[in-house]
Amino acid sequence: MDVTALFNLSYGLYIIGTKYGDRKAGCVVNTVTQSTSKPVTLTVCVNRDNYTNACMKQCREFTVSILSEKAKESTFGVFGFSCSKDRDKFAEVSSALTSSGLPYVTEGVTGYLECKIINFIDNFTHTVFIAEVVDAENLMKEPPMTYAYYHNVVKGKTPQKASSYAGDDAEYGAAYTCSVCGYEYAGTKEAFTGLPNDYVCPICQAPKSKFVSASTAI
Amino acid sequence: MDVTALFNLSYGLYIIGTKYGDRKAGCVVNTVTQSTSKPVTLTVCVNRDNYTNACMKQCREFTVSILSEKAKESTFGVFGFSCSKDRDKFAEVSSALTSSGLPYVTEGVTGYLECKIINFIDNFTHTVFIAEVVDAENLMKEPPMTYAYYHNVVKGKTPQKASSYAGDDAEYGAAYTCSVCGYEYAGTKEAFTGLPNDYVCPICQAPKSKFVSASTAI
Repeated sequence: MDVTALFNLSYGLYIIGTKYGDRKAGCVVNTVTQSTSKPVTLTVCVNRDNYTNACMKQCREFTVSILSEKAKESTFGVFGFSCSKDRDKFAEVSSALTSSGLPYVTEGVTGYLECKIINFIDNFTHTVFIAEVVDAENLMKEPPMTYAYYHNVVKGKTPQKASSYAGDDAEYGAAYTCSVCGYEYAGTKEAFTGLPNDYVCPICQAPKSKFVSASTAI
Repeated sequence: MDVTALFNLSYGLYIIGTKYGDRKAGCVVNTVTQSTSKPVTLTVCVNRDNYTNACMKQCREFTVSILSEKAKESTFGVFGFSCSKDRDKFAEVSSALTSSGLPYVTEGVTGYLECKIINFIDNFTHTVFIAEVVDAENLMKEPPMTYAYYHNVVKGKTPQKASSYAGDDAEYGAAYTCSVCGYEYAGTKEAFTGLPNDYVCPICQAPKSKFVSASTAI
């Protein structure tokens, strides 16, 4: 079995938004798929270890913000590499609330969907949610961000809790790599050393001290 | 609610292959999504009216052939716009059988997956299948076909039974359109009229008589 065959499945990238009482929660997923058109329903798969998963099961409602190619790298850092239990992720990006008080991202997205959970099944490490889309709006006319674009152009990494996580995929050809999220600094060792001490990873905001050099990483 | 917001969800395109006794069945889907990585499982959504759906529920096993950008237009015609009850679709393309006798497509695909159904839920018009991937092989190093590429480059249409079908999306700017699958003939009226009488639609193989002119269609 060659699991790399699965690397050719195609996906978009999305931010799930939900709430638990007054607390907002959200995370990045690549697993949103329209299931039916009458009524409009979709499926989405979220890691059971994610705080967002527990909040979705309580709230029974969530939003899907559809990331565009204009999405900021920091959006992936905030939503992909940290936990909603510790911070209000939506306060760190441009966001708004639906009439039901559900948070969604308003910047760097093509639009958003508002969904009511119909059913869910726990499937090993993840939960498959089936939900009806009760509202949908376009926000920006830009190409949607695909997973392939994220990997090949943004040079982003796969969070460990993702459905498609396939082990440490950092490529140590880079002079310096962020040890938190795997982001590869594009410049030389000299350029990295010359960066100010308050430099932070553009993906996950880890401080400069969390970067490891190629020799350390290998 | 603006349902066009859902047009920015990203997908690949796949052929599902299964069998019922000696009969092979298969169809095109855009809904294959990896769900977990340990073990490797996926979800796929198939219309309940599809003969393939009934065969999957009986057989409990299926293949996923991952279409590449090199997939032939006729593959979409055979698998997207006709029924497995009436014809052996896999006899009309290059195909092979897994050791369990499940059919998969071997031409114009990046590879294939062999899956065992763990669970399924009927969801209105479609069924959401959850399956474990028990084998996976790469066949060709080509970019996978995305749904966006199929619509924008191949100029393909959405089968009525697809999860994302949003009504008749034929654009009647074309001089002649296939009334079976919506394929738009790219040339002028004169060029179309001049085609031989045994011309068939390159997507669904419908005869020339099934094409309607712009004036008829409007």
